Amino acid sequence: MTERCVFCEGEGGRTVWRDARCRVVVADEAFPGFCRVIWKAHVREMTDLDAIDRDHLMRVVWATEAALRARVAPDKMNLASLGNVTPHLHWHVVPRFTDDSHFPQPVWGARQRDAAPRALPPDFADDLARDLRRAIDGA
Amino acid sequence: MTERCVFCEGEGGRTVWRDARCRVVVADEAFPGFCRVIWKAHVREMTDLDAIDRDHLMRVVWATEAALRARVAPDKMNLASLGNVTPHLHWHVVPRFTDDSHFPQPVWGARQRDAAPRALPPDFADDLARDLRRAIDGA
Repeated sequence: MTERCVFCEGEGGRTVWRDARCRVVVADEAFPGFCRVIWKAHVREMTDLDAIDRDHLMRVVWATEAALRARVAPDKMNLASLGNVTPHLHWHVVPRFTDDSHFPQPVWGARQRDAAPRALPPDFADDLARDLRRAIDGA
Repeated sequence: MTERCVFCEGEGGRTVWRDARCRVVVADEAFPGFCRVIWKAHVREMTDLDAIDRDHLMRVVWATEAALRARVAPDKMNLASLGNVTPHLHWHVVPRFTDDSHFPQPVWGARQRDAAPRALPPDFADDLARDLRRAIDGA
């Protein structure tokens, strides 16, 4: 990297799964269950990865989506890889609810209503970590 | 589907590639080169597809990203599958420029500046169609 990068310098959230290539973090966002899947190396675009690494990263994204759907039963899942602010490859994996603060806007869009983020069980991150180990590592 | 769906009832843009499972359209949006990859069946989430279909859809997304990068040389690519408004599986594949109207916000975020969309060559869609046939079909 040529400039300071938050995903090179820090975890970007509470890490619930990792391997040598990427990690899953629960983000500190006002949307409960908002996770990010962050590629370890400072790579810019999905098409900068080779096909094997791309498939690996997406397998982790799908596992994260599946675990979140099972744990929090969202009305919709939102997936995005933008990187305009932090051009270090990462995926937003966001459970959405029709009564959340921004629905049906993306979480980056205009707020639609006052809505307190719904509470997650206190052991949500530990449960998600176990889900991901099981789904990805078969452990 | 249980309600009317724009992606069941219409193409959703100018179709530049299709097969039996999905299509790529150039969208009518104020971001030149904005494409969508639309799954044909009315499916809601990526994890509602089986792994083979998921891989196929993403292979088309990567081919679209690669073709757009080669054709319009964006500063950043943005990828998103949201579906809050239209819960019919589709990917936004959006070339972004640091001087476009919304950068670094997502295209769904707050406008940052007045900026006319940059012009694309008149045969852009035909060229993209040829790129995709070559990349995906080997034709």
